[in-house]
This record gives sequence, C-alpha cells and structure tokens, in this order.
Amino acid sequence: MQQYFVFGSPDSGTVEITDKDTLKHMFRVMRLHTGDEAVLVFPDGIKRLAAVEDVESGTMRIIEELDENVELPVDVTVACGFPKGDKFRFIAQKATELGASAIWGFPAERSIVKWDAKKLTGLKEKLDKVVQGAAEQSKRNLIPEIDFVERSKELVDSFADFDRVFVAYEESAKAGEKSALAAALGEVSEGDRLLFIFGPEGGITGREIEQFTEAGAVCVGLGPRIMRAETAPLYALSSVSYALELSR
Amino acid sequence: MQQYFVFGSPDSGTVEITDKDTLKHMFRVMRLHTGDEAVLVFPDGIKRLAAVEDVESGTMRIIEELDENVELPVDVTVACGFPKGDKFRFIAQKATELGASAIWGFPAERSIVKWDAKKLTGLKEKLDKVVQGAAEQSKRNLIPEIDFVERSKELVDSFADFDRVFVAYEESAKAGEKSALAAALGEVSEGDRLLFIFGPEGGITGREIEQFTEAGAVCVGLGPRIMRAETAPLYALSSVSYALELSR
Repeated sequence: MQQYFVFGSPDSGTVEITDKDTLKHMFRVMRLHTGDEAVLVFPDGIKRLAAVEDVESGTMRIIEELDENVELPVDVTVACGFPKGDKFRFIAQKATELGASAIWGFPAERSIVKWDAKKLTGLKEKLDKVVQGAAEQSKRNLIPEIDFVERSKELVDSFADFDRVFVAYEESAKAGEKSALAAALGEVSEGDRLLFIFGPEGGITGREIEQFTEAGAVCVGLGPRIMRAETAPLYALSSVSYALELSR
Repeated sequence: MQQYFVFGSPDSGTVEITDKDTLKHMFRVMRLHTGDEAVLVFPDGIKRLAAVEDVESGTMRIIEELDENVELPVDVTVACGFPKGDKFRFIAQKATELGASAIWGFPAERSIVKWDAKKLTGLKEKLDKVVQGAAEQSKRNLIPEIDFVERSKELVDSFADFDRVFVAYEESAKAGEKSALAAALGEVSEGDRLLFIFGPEGGITGREIEQFTEAGAVCVGLGPRIMRAETAPLYALSSVSYALELSR
C-alpha cells in the first residue's frame, strides 16, 4: 500500500493533507477515491492506516495504528565531505533507502565545490524532497534530516551528541585494519547514536584525521578495495544493517 | 600509483600496451615518460610494478610482482533482473567497486526492457569498459565479467556451477526472515562460489521464486526496508565483505 508522510497531528482522528506533492500523488497519480486506503506516517514515526474521507479537501480519516517499524536499531548519521556534481543527491537517496537518520555535508579540505550558503539553501530544499520520496518508497518511519555543516569545527563539536564516531579512512584499510568497525558494532546498544564521516573524491587529509581522532573519532577500514566517495557510505550503512539486523 | 589491466603475458619481462584507451590514459592523461612507473595487472590477477621503456611503442618493462590482492575471499556473481534505463550500468560500476566477480543481467518476468540481442551486444561493450574503469579505480585484481542470460532457464542451469545460490526476496524480509543470509555466510569457505539473484523494479514473481528455490536457491531478506532494484545488490555485496573480510 502507498505510504505518505504527513505533518499534522493524528489526535483528532482526521487529517487534512496540505503538501502539494503529496496531494498530487494521492489524487492525480494514484487517483484515490473516497474510502480508498493509504498509510500515513506522522512526525511521531508511527504508521497509521487511513481512508480518504473527502477528496476535495484532501481529508483522511485514521483507521488504526500499524505495528510496523523498519528503522535501524541505532541512529546513524553520515557526514560526507562535500562531493562534486550530483553525487550528494545520490548519497542522500541511497542512504535513505539504507536507513540513515541524517545525511550531512561538510566542506572537507579536499572538497572542490565552493561553499555557497545561498546555493546550499536551494540544494537543501531539493534534497529534502529527494529523501522524502526515497523514505516513502522504502517505507521508512522517518524522513532523514539533511544538513550542511559550514565548518569542520562544527562537525567536531557535534561529536558530543554521538555515542560513537567513525572516520572511513583508506589508509587504515591499506594498513590492514580490518576489525575496528566489526568490533565497535559488536558493542553498540539499541538506540545508540553513530556518526560516520567520509571524505570527498580526493579523500580525507592527514590533518582532518588528526582533528577528528583527537576529538574521539575512530578510524575504520571498509575492506581492501578503494571505493568512490559516494559508495563508501552505502557500504557502511549496509554493514550496520547486516551486523545489527541480520546477524544479531 | 595508477593501475592498468593488460592482456598480454608477463613471461618475457616486457609488455606492449595495445589497448587504445589504456595508451591514451597512460601517455596523454597521465603523461608518463620513460622510467615512470605504473602497476600492471595481467589476466593471472597478479599485480606487477612496471616502468615505461618506450613511449612510442607503449612498451613497459616489468620490475617485480606485488603482493597485493584485494579480491573478496569468495567469488560473487550478481544476477539482476534486467532493470530500466541506465540502472544496469550503475549496478555494474558499483558492484565492481564492491568486489563482484561477475555481473549478469537476465530477463525477469517483470523486466520492462525488451530483450534485444543486437542492442545487448552494444551494451556489453559499453559495460565492459565501465567495469574495467571501475576495477582499475578500485585497484581490483580482476575485471568482473559482464554477461546476459537470455532465458531464466539458463540462469537456473547455471546454479550447478555455484556452491550457494541466494534470491533476495522482499516477502522474506516482510515475513521477518532475518537470519538466512547471516547463517549462510557464517558457513561459506574461502573460494566458494556464490550467486545472488535480484529482481527488477517490480520485484521477482512468485513463479520465479518457485523456479529458483526448486533448483536449490535460498530466499534471503536484506533487512526490513524496501530497497530499489539497483540498491539491493550493493547491500548484498557490502554484507559479504563485512561478514568475510571485516568480522572474521
């Protein structure tokens, strides 16, 4: 069944859909009629079965709560050194399918893209739609947060909000580091907050590694093959799911 | 250091590069001069350090064998129900970065793309270049094989060549199946040959599942979130790497 994120409160038993894209998808693409059902996900992350009460006003009547939670047992934020071109959009979409709670961009030393606050506001709006679409399609209970960190110091300051911080570091993999991620994932508890940091195309610099590890981040290798900037976050998220959802 | 796949034999101690794209990259893009070094990977999968002997003829002199193997400890083939548009190219590139040995396309019941032998010959040529480029960039020891299976019966017949065959099945995930993949990966041995089958956008049909499981395939869920057709193979390959390279 089709799933939509809605932004009101479920308390009154009915909800008026106001988001233009959602209305369009419901009534023009899916052509829902009075009585047709869909799953609505409220900001509380609970899915509720609802039926169309009135097409004209976009009103849905809530039928019942559904016991369906597909979120990872931990909260994973991926912070990516801002990559070139369309790659951040790609990462945002795929990381959403793979269960990320938040996807951040930061200006890494080797990021080529110039940091432009105005452009980023437009990009954020676009990406918010991308992750909402991906979250609906992958039946998530929440829409990942998109955010841009303007300076790497802010990224380091945010470490305090996480239980564990990892930096994907190619040199760790080359040096044969293989077990740090698995060891750490073996110890995490439900509800823990994890932050994974990834470099841009040119990789992360030694100075950044120093800055991050001094602040408590752990370097992890993600296997012996060199992955592109946009592939490494998908490997990490898949590994978290495999370790915590499939093999525990 | 730059890595190139070459197709001759290393026995004579020198090799003449004949592939046009490789020559162009070596001498126009990287502007290698006499004495400059690069890593050459021969069809035996062994990396060898080599130096330019003669730019004009594209001759390289082999210096020494390198002890560098980044291949997965098992041989993984991903077979994808032929997806729409450019997605197969995307899968081929990313699956190469993630260590696949072979990437196959097959006409699944819900594949929308029409099977056209002539078009596929052209596509294979394009994809061979894509995977070669990705294999060079990710420093693989081999170039994954691209192949198209014309009928699903051929796919089933190929099961005999594998130690384990998995089908990624959304309904397994929905039914709460979580441990089949982890249990199986816990039992594989080095050198085993694994085949993973994925559906196209519309998913795999019940009839296909029946056909595959009767022939020995095991249904596996890949976590509770619904992934797009092009994302599921990346999850599976990342999981194989995590299970066999990072946590053993």
